[in-house]
Amino acid sequence: MGTPAPAGKLDTLTSLCKRRGFIFQSSEIYGGINGFWDYGPLGCELKNNIKQSWWQTMVRTREDVVGIDATIIMHPAIWKASGHLDTFSDPMCTCKHCKKLMRADQIWEMLEDSELGPALKELHADGQPDVSRISGWCKGRGKGIGPGLAAVHNPDAVLAAVGPRLANTTFREFMILLASEKPDAPVQPCPHCGGELTEPRPFNLMFKTIVGPVEDPTNIAYLRPETAQAIFVQFQNVLATSRQSVPFGIAQMGKSFRNEVTPRNYTFRSREFEQMELEFFIRPDEAIELLYGRVVTLADNPDLATPQDNWGWQVWHKYWVEQRLAWYRRVGLPDASLVQYWQEPAELAHYARACVDIQYAFPFGVQELEGIAARSDFDLTQHQKHSGKSMEVFDEPLKLAAAKLDETARTAFTDKVVADWATRGKSADDARAFVAKLFDGRFIPHVIEPSAGADRMALALLCNAYVEEQVTDEKGKTETRTVMRFSPLVAPIKVAVFPLVKNKPELYAKAREIFGQMQRRCACFWDESGAIGRRYRRMDEAGTPFCVTIDFQTLEDGTVTLRNRDTMKQERLSVAALKEKLEEVLL
Amino acid sequence: MGTPAPAGKLDTLTSLCKRRGFIFQSSEIYGGINGFWDYGPLGCELKNNIKQSWWQTMVRTREDVVGIDATIIMHPAIWKASGHLDTFSDPMCTCKHCKKLMRADQIWEMLEDSELGPALKELHADGQPDVSRISGWCKGRGKGIGPGLAAVHNPDAVLAAVGPRLANTTFREFMILLASEKPDAPVQPCPHCGGELTEPRPFNLMFKTIVGPVEDPTNIAYLRPETAQAIFVQFQNVLATSRQSVPFGIAQMGKSFRNEVTPRNYTFRSREFEQMELEFFIRPDEAIELLYGRVVTLADNPDLATPQDNWGWQVWHKYWVEQRLAWYRRVGLPDASLVQYWQEPAELAHYARACVDIQYAFPFGVQELEGIAARSDFDLTQHQKHSGKSMEVFDEPLKLAAAKLDETARTAFTDKVVADWATRGKSADDARAFVAKLFDGRFIPHVIEPSAGADRMALALLCNAYVEEQVTDEKGKTETRTVMRFSPLVAPIKVAVFPLVKNKPELYAKAREIFGQMQRRCACFWDESGAIGRRYRRMDEAGTPFCVTIDFQTLEDGTVTLRNRDTMKQERLSVAALKEKLEEVLL
Repeated sequence: MGTPAPAGKLDTLTSLCKRRGFIFQSSEIYGGINGFWDYGPLGCELKNNIKQSWWQTMVRTREDVVGIDATIIMHPAIWKASGHLDTFSDPMCTCKHCKKLMRADQIWEMLEDSELGPALKELHADGQPDVSRISGWCKGRGKGIGPGLAAVHNPDAVLAAVGPRLANTTFREFMILLASEKPDAPVQPCPHCGGELTEPRPFNLMFKTIVGPVEDPTNIAYLRPETAQAIFVQFQNVLATSRQSVPFGIAQMGKSFRNEVTPRNYTFRSREFEQMELEFFIRPDEAIELLYGRVVTLADNPDLATPQDNWGWQVWHKYWVEQRLAWYRRVGLPDASLVQYWQEPAELAHYARACVDIQYAFPFGVQELEGIAARSDFDLTQHQKHSGKSMEVFDEPLKLAAAKLDETARTAFTDKVVADWATRGKSADDARAFVAKLFDGRFIPHVIEPSAGADRMALALLCNAYVEEQVTDEKGKTETRTVMRFSPLVAPIKVAVFPLVKNKPELYAKAREIFGQMQRRCACFWDESGAIGRRYRRMDEAGTPFCVTIDFQTLEDGTVTLRNRDTMKQERLSVAALKEKLEEVLL
Repeated sequence: MGTPAPAGKLDTLTSLCKRRGFIFQSSEIYGGINGFWDYGPLGCELKNNIKQSWWQTMVRTREDVVGIDATIIMHPAIWKASGHLDTFSDPMCTCKHCKKLMRADQIWEMLEDSELGPALKELHADGQPDVSRISGWCKGRGKGIGPGLAAVHNPDAVLAAVGPRLANTTFREFMILLASEKPDAPVQPCPHCGGELTEPRPFNLMFKTIVGPVEDPTNIAYLRPETAQAIFVQFQNVLATSRQSVPFGIAQMGKSFRNEVTPRNYTFRSREFEQMELEFFIRPDEAIELLYGRVVTLADNPDLATPQDNWGWQVWHKYWVEQRLAWYRRVGLPDASLVQYWQEPAELAHYARACVDIQYAFPFGVQELEGIAARSDFDLTQHQKHSGKSMEVFDEPLKLAAAKLDETARTAFTDKVVADWATRGKSADDARAFVAKLFDGRFIPHVIEPSAGADRMALALLCNAYVEEQVTDEKGKTETRTVMRFSPLVAPIKVAVFPLVKNKPELYAKAREIFGQMQRRCACFWDESGAIGRRYRRMDEAGTPFCVTIDFQTLEDGTVTLRNRDTMKQERLSVAALKEKLEEVLL
């Protein structure tokens, strides 16, 4: 469980982000546009570094993952197949009196802020949330109900994060209580005027547009609400061209759009955001059993360091959770700030086998950075049904393994699968058809989906990096130092180069020469104005891990001063040693 | 003038692109969606390398340019200010008989393909295009009329590229001729049925959507048709936070969207595409004159290698043309394939001082890769007007320089500016107000805009790289080798590593070790199956510049075989020498 950051931290952070050019409000000079944020010069480099590190880790240094880059606007049939067209919606109510439109699942929160709040709070002050009933309420709404209910998914984390900041009871406890008592009741009264509200109606979160010159319903298309679906629809093309076979993954980074009714928490819940998604395709457990006699599960306590052919979905899922946690730690989030939330079976979407949220303790609460879901063969099966195109793969070793079974063994295997599928509510006919395909070496791959948000990661890194500390200078004067403690891997600027003085041509030229060498390798910043101490402070705020000063001694012995952002310690070393040191940290 | 590639080349290229995973049709399993293309595993790396090289060249290794990353959906007032809402449209006609909708400026082309074509061609077979009248016709339509008229901008290049492939006359000559004879006549008859067409009506090319839950005209927003405008609206935020001062630039890469009526030429004219744009802000020439006594122009034949403070806009514009050409050459387009097209004064938009198109000889014609425009202070001025927020900068040295002028000198300077502005049709009042600001050290910066397309560059590199050649093997057998001659800088895979055999554990382990070392540094591919010759061919098609084979000698002396894709020559060298060689080529 992470330690929640202090509540006030977000204000000082957003102010620094604006002042130093990490994040600006989109279209600010026109009054802004709610739910859209731009990255300034430093923020843009930070986010690029996050994306590059993700790509390097998930694609370039893996032989079993390849990337794609698909369009944001795709054929609308994709969203029918994926379920987004029918269920990717928030419930909305309108007030019959004041005509205001609001999200049904946020009305209690609005009520708490309204003049009705104190009375309502009083009424439920001694109520206790009933987690299992909430889970039931959420069940099946899964991804479909929209992110507004994310808090309800994880009431423990919510209470731990929010509880200490509020007296007596909180609106979330209140919302949870109400939800558990009246799971399907329309919410009342209107938080704006106390009037009567309509029944909630679904509001689809996909942005709509028209492709082509004819404004006709047949030409409606959508901005993708996730990057994942492009991976599924291009699965066969990638399989055919990339010399990969299951198990393997397809990764994609890119913008996604959700027409959130209530964007909030700075950049956390935006209408336009960037995802980094992997779909890792695996054999169904039944294929593993045919191939290797049995399926390795977590009960076998397998070594998760190196993937094995006989792993079942459960081990692959856990493997990806560990891989992803390792990445979050490597790019700089401390273990203590990360929360793993394993969804309860009742919370899972009907097709999902397991889902873990990796959460971070933001100043506004513990919130999701990434979801890692075992989605079975749901997505590929849906696209096979809707497109009429086969999503099966042919697995030669599987066919050979099946051919070795005699009739008795085949029957026993089939009966076992039928019985197993029955426990998941699937028909014997479906199970038999699946096994028949399997014996022929054919199946639709299952998938593990680690789905992360680049902007959320940027925000988490900004929150985590921000430190104000009291430092005492040589003269004994104490001042507040604001420092962004980014890991060198993601820091927008890696090295700042300072000439000690600018009016000594030889020293200045030497500094320029060293700067030129550095600049070919990594993002560098040149600063020649002001006292060295002030230049350090500016780089502290930008989160630059290393400052290099060229002084008179450099001209004599070729050494420079390297100052470490976090320890503020300085050391002298040769330019060659400096390059090695940087390569070590940055590669 | 580039040599046009053979017409049939595009077909073989698109087939390779699909087969090797460079480019797939978007949503292919659902029948595709016209004007949208996805990048497969190799294409995605190619495009990423193009973008990274652009960013490295334009931002990271320059101290006078910083980057931003803004949203695709911005405040709709931006597109009113920029002019896109009013003029970013194509003229559309509807047939009164068959009700079909078509682009007015493409009707002649469609006619040529219709059964009416031969007769119409006969009628105009001896007509000659009148370039100056065409220029007049295009004048003022500039960016506003949509890309369909790009061909008409440059009839010479079009004729040179297309002429040789068509007998007698071409539809383009025909279109040009018709255009010159009837500049404003509605086009007739309908190419589909011969029916009567309506007058052309403007069809705006911006994709529309609704932000927020209320479907109301006040909530209409647009997908950006260019990335440039975000740079202008965030100009003051960036200036205030980045420690830059004019002259400096702001760069952005990202998706843009244009609802093209007729997407075509493979990925060239797509509805969703990625731009790489720089807005480089400079002082107006009048400020240069005040500061340095005179303005350096191209007539001074300045050295363009290193920017100078006293350059006027004309030199800055030429500087960026040269910088951009150098980049195209560096990432692999031969000089002979690039065309510089300097727009005629009559072709320029009213605010533009100059515009150069950098064009490439695609198999379907010589077409634009990038436009480099000197846009004066038009964009910032528009946003100042529409937002009410100042877009001026304060220039201390300018104020000091102006303060040194006596009253006579001031009057002389003012008179000169008034006279100069009058030649461009601007009022004396405006000129005086401008000069008064200038004396106070204030002005709205002018801008040079190099605006490139990442997808167009990817397509140009694919076209340029594709070579089929006859090679003879050791046994004297001749075969066709398909090779993608990408520059190592942009090649999707830099190095392939092959163990000579896979059944010798020691050799295999050594090869894995070397692969592991390479993989940390660059995009690598492991291939252990098939004869080495076949593995080379596979990498030739992927465009991998270097293949490294680990054999028995490697175990003895640590050397490997490095095979060069283009020369097919092999050399033995140590692993350390290999790393150095790669670093040299790739950094």
